[in-house]
Amino acid sequence: MSDVPKSHPRYLSLTLRDRIVEGVEKGITSIHGLIAHGRGEAFDYLIGEKTQSFATNAICVAAAMLKLSNHPVISVNGNVAALVPKELIELAHILKAPLEVNIFHTETGREEKIRQHLLKNGADNVLMPSQDAQLSYIDSNRKYVHPGGIFIADVVFVPLEDGDRCEALRKMGKDVVTVDLNPMSRTAKQASITIVDNVVRTLPLLCKEILKLTNDSDLQNKLTHYNNEDILQQALQYISRSPDG
Amino acid sequence: MSDVPKSHPRYLSLTLRDRIVEGVEKGITSIHGLIAHGRGEAFDYLIGEKTQSFATNAICVAAAMLKLSNHPVISVNGNVAALVPKELIELAHILKAPLEVNIFHTETGREEKIRQHLLKNGADNVLMPSQDAQLSYIDSNRKYVHPGGIFIADVVFVPLEDGDRCEALRKMGKDVVTVDLNPMSRTAKQASITIVDNVVRTLPLLCKEILKLTNDSDLQNKLTHYNNEDILQQALQYISRSPDG
Repeated sequence: MSDVPKSHPRYLSLTLRDRIVEGVEKGITSIHGLIAHGRGEAFDYLIGEKTQSFATNAICVAAAMLKLSNHPVISVNGNVAALVPKELIELAHILKAPLEVNIFHTETGREEKIRQHLLKNGADNVLMPSQDAQLSYIDSNRKYVHPGGIFIADVVFVPLEDGDRCEALRKMGKDVVTVDLNPMSRTAKQASITIVDNVVRTLPLLCKEILKLTNDSDLQNKLTHYNNEDILQQALQYISRSPDG
Repeated sequence: MSDVPKSHPRYLSLTLRDRIVEGVEKGITSIHGLIAHGRGEAFDYLIGEKTQSFATNAICVAAAMLKLSNHPVISVNGNVAALVPKELIELAHILKAPLEVNIFHTETGREEKIRQHLLKNGADNVLMPSQDAQLSYIDSNRKYVHPGGIFIADVVFVPLEDGDRCEALRKMGKDVVTVDLNPMSRTAKQASITIVDNVVRTLPLLCKEILKLTNDSDLQNKLTHYNNEDILQQALQYISRSPDG
């Protein structure tokens, strides 16, 4: 349990750290995930630890893309499983999309532990990677996917992604929606839609936005006019604003 | 062992992560060190993961300062021990300076494990903190130093430093050379010379620079004209530059 007092000015951020550390203790988060989380914390500082307009805009379009997709899949790694299990399950429920476990570092049994963790949190459909289906253009363990999940998906939601797989998914013609605090990452640059925000803030907003959409609205129009490079540029400009400004 | 394929475009960065994780597994790196490393990664992104001119300039002057010093000491914590043990030993060898273990988080036996790790990597003189000598102006565990090492040093090389101790060393009239990817950190601001760079890139350059120096050159002149605030300003400007620039 956390020993961070609620009065601490960085209570929320420190609570998230606790969740990640708990994830490591439970065997669902890789110890490398702690480093990635630390990097995320630094970038979150730089965007003021708030969901900025470049993220809100990307969330709106991501909602439309996920709503319009025929076979969306939500990819789950050890960090998001530790940080936002319930929110991922809610998103899966709203989209009627499966969750699929896909991790980079393959400590023994970690994939199964993530699945169990999601099931315990209320998930009812968690796909696992298999040797029966492989992504092209990728060497790491992440190439193994479920033949009825990521393999045949048209849109993959991959929060806290690694750039290699994002590139592979795109090359295979799939759309990728990602959440990444670093607008300079390869993932951020290669995804179809990049939400530069903390996944903890993004997921509830994304769910709300999808529920607001109606089928007859101009969803396709939103997608056509979306430019991910512009969004990344806005995020970079925000980060690179004068420290005095 | 690492499961990162060599073809991964972020192989180097991921390998450094592996070294830090290995450090934790060996008991030489604090688990807190993982988060610090992640924060460092974020700042490294912002300086383009390259040794920029503000770092090269600081390295040149740091080489002169270390060369001119009468009693230089190299302070070693759990992160640098994991990342660059051989390079620290080479620097110690070139300067004929002792390595001294000094850490913030004092898990049982960690100091001794760091010493053993350095000895295994070829060090022949590793000083340990002792109750016989204490730094003034500091409360944490870092106040305990070796009476023949940091305590009497005129210049201390303290890569990946914590701000508190840097301040204490400066107040005691010692010069501090630090390597810190965050130009806004307290350490960066308080050190005599701050090399804003990744320690993995800095150390080989620093060693090379020291070997190039000759005693009769204008080393003192270099020191007199060095302004650390200017260097930090340059680093900040680089980070805050327009993304197009």
